[in-house]
Amino acid sequence: MEQKTQEKADSNVVYVGKKSNMAYVMAAMTQFNSGHIEIHVKARGNSISKCVDVAEILKNKFLPDVKVKDIRIATEQMKVEGGSTVGVSTMEIILAK
Amino acid sequence: MEQKTQEKADSNVVYVGKKSNMAYVMAAMTQFNSGHIEIHVKARGNSISKCVDVAEILKNKFLPDVKVKDIRIATEQMKVEGGSTVGVSTMEIILAK
Repeated sequence: MEQKTQEKADSNVVYVGKKSNMAYVMAAMTQFNSGHIEIHVKARGNSISKCVDVAEILKNKFLPDVKVKDIRIATEQMKVEGGSTVGVSTMEIILAK
Repeated sequence: MEQKTQEKADSNVVYVGKKSNMAYVMAAMTQFNSGHIEIHVKARGNSISKCVDVAEILKNKFLPDVKVKDIRIATEQMKVEGGSTVGVSTMEIILAK
C-alpha cells in the first residue's frame, strides 16, 4: 500500500539531501506551478531538519496558500558493511494547496 | 491558546538538544512511567532530526504501545546579534499510549 502510493506520487516528490534549502524550495515551487496540488517533501537521517526548513520557508515566504496536510515519520532499515542493518529515521511532509 | 497548552504540559515535555539520543529516550520513558499518557518531544534547528530518532527508538524498541498522535512544525523568530531576527524551524512530536 505504502509502496504503491510512493510509486504513483513520484512526480510530485522532492527528496531533500545535501543541497541548499533554496534548491529544494525551488524544486517544490516548480512542481506546484506545473499543476500539482500536493507535494511530498521527503528526507532521512540528518536531512530531516532541512526538510522542515524547506516546508516552513515554502509556506511562510513563497506560497502562503499552501498548508501542511500531514507529516509522517518512520524508520527504514539500511544495510551497512558486514551485512548488518541499522535503522534510519525518515520523514515525509505533505504540503497541499 | 498555544502558550496556555504549553504551560500546562511542561511536565510532560522532553526538549531534545545536544545530548545523546538515549538520554532523551530515557527521559521520555521516565515521564510515561510516572503516569503521563501523552508526551511532547520538542526540538528546534538541527536537533529536529534527533527528535525524530528519539520518537522512533521509543516506539519501536521500548514502548510498542506508544503511537505518534500528532506532529507539528513551525517557525520561531529568534533575535540575533545586531537586533535582527532569523527564523528557526521547530518541531513537536506528540506521543501517546
